[in-house]
Amino acid sequence: FIHGNTASFNMPSPWGYQCLDYKCVKEENTGVVGLTTLNECKLTCGASSSLWPKPQTAQLGKTTAQFLPRAITLDHVSPPTVSPLLLEAFHLFLNNLDKHHPQYSDKTVTWSEPWDPSVSSHMVQVKVTIQQPDIWLTLLTDESYQLVVETSARVTTVTIIAPTFFGARHALETLAQLIAYHETRDNLMIVTSATVRDAPAFPYRGLLLDTSRNYFSVAALERTIDAMAANKLNTFHWHITDSHSFPLNLESLPNMAYYGAYSSNSIYHPLDVVHLVKYARVRGIRLLPEFDAPAHVGNGWQWGERQGLGKLAVCVNKEPWQQYCVEPPCGQLNLANPNIYKVLSEIYREMIQLFAPVDLFHYGGDEVNLNCWNTTEEMTSWMKAQNYGLDADAYYGQWSVFQEKVRQLVTQAHGGVEVPGILWTSHLTEKGRVNKYLNNTKYIIQIWTTGQDALIAELLQKQYKVIFSNYDAWYLDCGGGAWVGEGNNWCSPYSGWQKVYDNSPHAIAKALTNSTHANLILGGEAALWTEQIDEEAVDARLWPRGAALAERLWTNPSTGWADAEYRLIHHRQRLVQRGVSAERIQPQWCHQNEGLCYA
Amino acid sequence: FIHGNTASFNMPSPWGYQCLDYKCVKEENTGVVGLTTLNECKLTCGASSSLWPKPQTAQLGKTTAQFLPRAITLDHVSPPTVSPLLLEAFHLFLNNLDKHHPQYSDKTVTWSEPWDPSVSSHMVQVKVTIQQPDIWLTLLTDESYQLVVETSARVTTVTIIAPTFFGARHALETLAQLIAYHETRDNLMIVTSATVRDAPAFPYRGLLLDTSRNYFSVAALERTIDAMAANKLNTFHWHITDSHSFPLNLESLPNMAYYGAYSSNSIYHPLDVVHLVKYARVRGIRLLPEFDAPAHVGNGWQWGERQGLGKLAVCVNKEPWQQYCVEPPCGQLNLANPNIYKVLSEIYREMIQLFAPVDLFHYGGDEVNLNCWNTTEEMTSWMKAQNYGLDADAYYGQWSVFQEKVRQLVTQAHGGVEVPGILWTSHLTEKGRVNKYLNNTKYIIQIWTTGQDALIAELLQKQYKVIFSNYDAWYLDCGGGAWVGEGNNWCSPYSGWQKVYDNSPHAIAKALTNSTHANLILGGEAALWTEQIDEEAVDARLWPRGAALAERLWTNPSTGWADAEYRLIHHRQRLVQRGVSAERIQPQWCHQNEGLCYA
Repeated sequence: FIHGNTASFNMPSPWGYQCLDYKCVKEENTGVVGLTTLNECKLTCGASSSLWPKPQTAQLGKTTAQFLPRAITLDHVSPPTVSPLLLEAFHLFLNNLDKHHPQYSDKTVTWSEPWDPSVSSHMVQVKVTIQQPDIWLTLLTDESYQLVVETSARVTTVTIIAPTFFGARHALETLAQLIAYHETRDNLMIVTSATVRDAPAFPYRGLLLDTSRNYFSVAALERTIDAMAANKLNTFHWHITDSHSFPLNLESLPNMAYYGAYSSNSIYHPLDVVHLVKYARVRGIRLLPEFDAPAHVGNGWQWGERQGLGKLAVCVNKEPWQQYCVEPPCGQLNLANPNIYKVLSEIYREMIQLFAPVDLFHYGGDEVNLNCWNTTEEMTSWMKAQNYGLDADAYYGQWSVFQEKVRQLVTQAHGGVEVPGILWTSHLTEKGRVNKYLNNTKYIIQIWTTGQDALIAELLQKQYKVIFSNYDAWYLDCGGGAWVGEGNNWCSPYSGWQKVYDNSPHAIAKALTNSTHANLILGGEAALWTEQIDEEAVDARLWPRGAALAERLWTNPSTGWADAEYRLIHHRQRLVQRGVSAERIQPQWCHQNEGLCYA
Repeated sequence: FIHGNTASFNMPSPWGYQCLDYKCVKEENTGVVGLTTLNECKLTCGASSSLWPKPQTAQLGKTTAQFLPRAITLDHVSPPTVSPLLLEAFHLFLNNLDKHHPQYSDKTVTWSEPWDPSVSSHMVQVKVTIQQPDIWLTLLTDESYQLVVETSARVTTVTIIAPTFFGARHALETLAQLIAYHETRDNLMIVTSATVRDAPAFPYRGLLLDTSRNYFSVAALERTIDAMAANKLNTFHWHITDSHSFPLNLESLPNMAYYGAYSSNSIYHPLDVVHLVKYARVRGIRLLPEFDAPAHVGNGWQWGERQGLGKLAVCVNKEPWQQYCVEPPCGQLNLANPNIYKVLSEIYREMIQLFAPVDLFHYGGDEVNLNCWNTTEEMTSWMKAQNYGLDADAYYGQWSVFQEKVRQLVTQAHGGVEVPGILWTSHLTEKGRVNKYLNNTKYIIQIWTTGQDALIAELLQKQYKVIFSNYDAWYLDCGGGAWVGEGNNWCSPYSGWQKVYDNSPHAIAKALTNSTHANLILGGEAALWTEQIDEEAVDARLWPRGAALAERLWTNPSTGWADAEYRLIHHRQRLVQRGVSAERIQPQWCHQNEGLCYA
């Protein structure tokens, strides 16, 4: 036994693991045959190994082959458009395997010799066939894949067949989860046989990050996208701007960020956006831009009068804020000023260019405060001059006119080709209003009310396509302290991963309408509004709860969280290995003693 | 205006700040005289600048002098025992100043030339006088200091006078907060004049970290100690072991960690402890060891029978856990086995040696489960054989006998010199029991019930010295999801920093007993139990709420959180600069617009 200043014990662990009844059971290692390490047990025990999200079907072997990362080769048959993407995705896959090593740091690791010849000679041959040339994700993209692992003697063959690149890269994520680091041999191991047929339950599987309340560096966005990729989420919904700040540095409108960014270091340059679009794409993810209007604008819009365009936004930072908006600082577009459409036209044009190709555009459209407009002389004069009146319906009407105008501007910015729009539930979607104001062939509605809201039934019955983000389960910012005043924040309590996991859009629809409305529910999204979060703590808010969301949206299991617990605890460890500071959900003792931390 | 792939705008900000009514007010910078940067405004605006915790008295100038870090010199008069400590503390102070620089990384930064000659020639001369030779903290240590800053022409003189090293290092922390980075000049600035007289309200200002439920690397402990130092907290209460794991690798009892650590990489070596004791000391902090017994033991104790010592712990990992302990895994010492005292004697001896010099020892002593003992044949046979009986009082009696024995072992391990002990509130401290079982001259009681508990009144009325950790405000792990079962964890909701700040031990005592009992209340401590936290997310759980605690315990203000809010928001930024991933408590907009984020 070695004492003192060493990095670790120099003796094997007194404990080993045995797979019993689909659980890894810790036992004292007194030379018993069949005890393995924890990683090896997790790889071969459990009905779905430690795969996350759980595939639609998987048959998995119970033995492993030991090998070295350098032994992995790639053969592929794919359309020429797709090959460079696949090669890049494969490179990411290899790098992710290196991250399993405890001494991994900064993209390198040294695997220390010598190994047993049976280990160093074992080959892992990955053969990928991609059928279609698509290189951009749409709601119609076939993300399915088949993955077969076979081993004979010293060769493990992995055969991946996928209609699209997106399915193939999902297969590589699954493959990475069939491989683990062997804690005592210092090599990798792979499950010797597997047959996985897999496809997502929902085409839209999103995560929203708000970069206006607080700024996040490009590195933090990349890390978030990495973690999404590890969970087969496919939409990074970027709520870029809001009334608080305008960090997007548009080439055509530099004043927006100049006046609106928190500082000269807290901005996204055009090339950052272009970079992130590609960064996300090779990880199977669309970067969905949101430009929230006509409310949720403010800081960044203060330059209009100086440039001869009049007041573009009203109620900007107006006090007392409670009268003019839902949270400080206030601000709404000035519908009385036609110059807003000139500016918006530039914003949409440049955004659509930076995010190209866009297959969806998020208009925001939530939380308009009528009192802001109704106490702004320029607005009320205009409303009166146009004979619109000043009642709520008059304002809703003008808001919907605004929405139609910006929809046309986006279409125009997109070369005249219509882009399906997404809107938050709002006053315009309330009972009896939605079909008056919003065309169900043009808009997808993102639901952020509770999962019990009758509004959901109305939207489905009126044939709106919807995305679920009901705040009672899928707002990840809930449950902290208040940031105005004291007590807890508005949407407390905190939603644990169990609640995130069990929040089923189909079950909600069924409870409210007696039908799952599977054809209308495109999927769901967890939202992280960032009043109280910046990049210092973002990982722990998003993960592993984002993984719970991902399994709901990919697998849509008929079972609840309890059946997923062991896999999630192990998957969380994998996310940490990948450089994501995911929160622990249980003591490590529970990870090492499956099934013993129960209520 | 520069577009594209640059790191930031190359233009000055359109905004500047003006100090109006003790608030930094953001205004458009159209060449107005008197507008400053945000950092400069925060340094000179507000009644206490941005000092945290707020000193007892401070008069601060409203102007700044610009200088470079290399211009700082140290002169000191101090007893020879203290000089090396002071030099080390001064080195830390200088390094902390470097961290203000946005390009700081990994202990270095380059301050880029050229500067205005008035900046590069400005000197900052720090003169420190320490009167007493003490180099270890006790509850009687005088932590007070005086700090005077004066500036004439090109020299700023800082005079620090403190009875002890500990006061002097607190003064350096205060001084570091009177200095800030100037965002546009790329130099430091210091408030030109200041007179601060300061001393803590409470001698015990603690933070508990539990390294048994989950393991934390030495680097994570160091980072936590760094952040404590920045807040003038003085006690790192290390809850090292528990039933979950035993990470402390004792030289005399290697089996404890060999069987009890989560892995061979998840251990603290003896030299780690010795290192941390010194690391904390120079930062003004005692490392307080807790060895929790007779409950909260389990994993790590499994080797007794094999070594011929019989069963040392009972109910270890026993199922169903609900019958034998408060959370899985269970375990309690086997009072029927006298060999436990041999083992405990070794544990205490080595711990007291590693943590030397100890001025306090924490015995734990909470949450004994009588049913564990009462369903263990060896225990019940022994109880019966000794004619103790098997009722609750009999077990409490034997528990208190155990406590007296371990107290004697600790005294013996400490060379026969008694060490004040700390115990958690427990069955032994319940109404009518405490003075039967625990001597108020030998034990300090750490209160973890709610702040409304009548038990607090009884302890104070019976003249027990106490430390407050009432869970309804000062347990920092509350408010997340449950980790056994679903829903929220047991002590939800989350306590926001406001509640942490307003939790006043004196006010609690006064409400319950009509007296503040200031002579009995040694201070308080926030506890982070780590069932759901490991080092990936620990900073955000501890900070900035730990800072709110620190001001309550250092300043004990008569005002509430609202008066502290601007300073805390700025202080949080300082913690982030120091490498601590503290949580944001408001949008950055609120930091830039003081007073506008209110309820």
